[in-house]
Amino acid sequence: MPFDRLIDSIIKMDNPTVAGLDPKLDYIPGYIKEPIFKEMGNTLEAASEAIWQFNKGLIDALYDIVPAVKPQCAYYEMYGWQGMKTLKRTIDYASQKGMFVITDGKRNDIGSTMESYACAHLGKTDINGQAIEAFGADALTVNGYLGTDGIKPLIDICNKEDKGIFVLVKTSNPSSGELQDLKLQENISIYEKMGMLCEQWGSSIMGKKYNYSGVGAVVGATYPEQLLELRAKLPHTFFLVPGYGAQGGGAKGIAPAFDKDGIGAIVNSSRAIMCAYKKENCDEKDYAGAARREALRMQSDLRNFL
Amino acid sequence: MPFDRLIDSIIKMDNPTVAGLDPKLDYIPGYIKEPIFKEMGNTLEAASEAIWQFNKGLIDALYDIVPAVKPQCAYYEMYGWQGMKTLKRTIDYASQKGMFVITDGKRNDIGSTMESYACAHLGKTDINGQAIEAFGADALTVNGYLGTDGIKPLIDICNKEDKGIFVLVKTSNPSSGELQDLKLQENISIYEKMGMLCEQWGSSIMGKKYNYSGVGAVVGATYPEQLLELRAKLPHTFFLVPGYGAQGGGAKGIAPAFDKDGIGAIVNSSRAIMCAYKKENCDEKDYAGAARREALRMQSDLRNFL
Repeated sequence: MPFDRLIDSIIKMDNPTVAGLDPKLDYIPGYIKEPIFKEMGNTLEAASEAIWQFNKGLIDALYDIVPAVKPQCAYYEMYGWQGMKTLKRTIDYASQKGMFVITDGKRNDIGSTMESYACAHLGKTDINGQAIEAFGADALTVNGYLGTDGIKPLIDICNKEDKGIFVLVKTSNPSSGELQDLKLQENISIYEKMGMLCEQWGSSIMGKKYNYSGVGAVVGATYPEQLLELRAKLPHTFFLVPGYGAQGGGAKGIAPAFDKDGIGAIVNSSRAIMCAYKKENCDEKDYAGAARREALRMQSDLRNFL
Repeated sequence: MPFDRLIDSIIKMDNPTVAGLDPKLDYIPGYIKEPIFKEMGNTLEAASEAIWQFNKGLIDALYDIVPAVKPQCAYYEMYGWQGMKTLKRTIDYASQKGMFVITDGKRNDIGSTMESYACAHLGKTDINGQAIEAFGADALTVNGYLGTDGIKPLIDICNKEDKGIFVLVKTSNPSSGELQDLKLQENISIYEKMGMLCEQWGSSIMGKKYNYSGVGAVVGATYPEQLLELRAKLPHTFFLVPGYGAQGGGAKGIAPAFDKDGIGAIVNSSRAIMCAYKKENCDEKDYAGAARREALRMQSDLRNFL
């Protein structure tokens, strides 16, 4: 079970953190990107190469203290197929270093198409009988608006390949309540309904060690009350919690995401880790060191409340 | 306004059809793919090259009778970054031929991330002051589960670049009702609510010629009653209607998607066009000819009911 693997790493490192790799060009130190742009021009290839080198430095600095990374697809797609090549290199490198890789793609579609997304990001693509990993992450974020037949193909591949998914339940953004908080006639909100679907979908892919299924939920750190409520209602659903730090969620508010044994969630930090060298105002050549220091600071911050 | 452009083409060709480019390897005639696999092996590169050649043949056969194409991202992502390169080549080629390109990605995320998706698929990516098109479609399908701040960045770029979006409202798959049909306490369904949000989001990007906004909606051909209901309730929302043909939606059921002037929607057909040569049982070298014949048959089928 993929989340058994992830939870094992979280416990071993005593750190329920995932480092978000959402690399904007502005985040990349000049000493990395300037020589690349000088050589390759202001091209998608050059930007993608700079991102790759930036990511590699971060992974090298984090892999022994942070159990997982979460590359955000959008920040690779914006550099075209060249950026997607960097996504693949990043996933491969983090995996080699033993990190659990969550591709943040929020993919969704009808069943037959979802099967292709499942192959792309979690399984393998069949080419005349040869099975090739297109991107090969350990877990993928998905959107459940299309219901069960958009989720089923993912679960089949998760069962086969020991992978997991995180379904958007209550997202961290300011307007998430516009739709997600609306009450249904059955007197629960849309996000609660989505959470209940996660429990239902997860029942066919239960973990053997920790009682969490392979169907997790995305629940934003910016909504601590909902974290508390959903933790109680969704006992088998592992949470991916974005919104810590830059988006305004604090460690105290995140505590309810965890169960009585202190597990059940992983907290994402992207900008605060990637741009720690800017906040520290240290030499930009120490950006990876600063990222490590911020990850350790976050670990200790989370520990205070768990 | 992008949908003004699209509607102009639909009227000129008298054909409200978009050809879905969801190219599975099984769909590609042996005379195209076999020499490629022989030369390049069973690789992602080879599969992507075969898909590109297949798509090119289809576009050549369709561009003067079908106003738009809709490449489905999943079928390119499953071949890795190599597949995404074929997506880009396909978009560029269809655009050169004057076709309106709808990238079917169903993307969704929080505001700052959605801005990157908007740049990736509709706008341009800034690299040190140089603006480069990463994928460059005319419209993108998106999922509105995150509310307004996940849509706003798209609308800003649509306004700037003359592009459009289609928001998932009522999808064509069997389990779409599981969430989308649930009634809210305000006594409307979730899909109706999403439709109303489309009208609201679209109000800042109204067409000058046809009274449709740049925010369209995806409404499945498989649910004719909902098509009828939504057409009445969403007078400024242009519909993208998937599910005709292979998924079971017929031309009669689709008619309510159109307004009294016979505009307001575009109907997608993927497999029936791409695989027409299999159904016709003609020489596979005539696959593009068969696709054209099927597109003309579909045009006449739709005309009977409009």
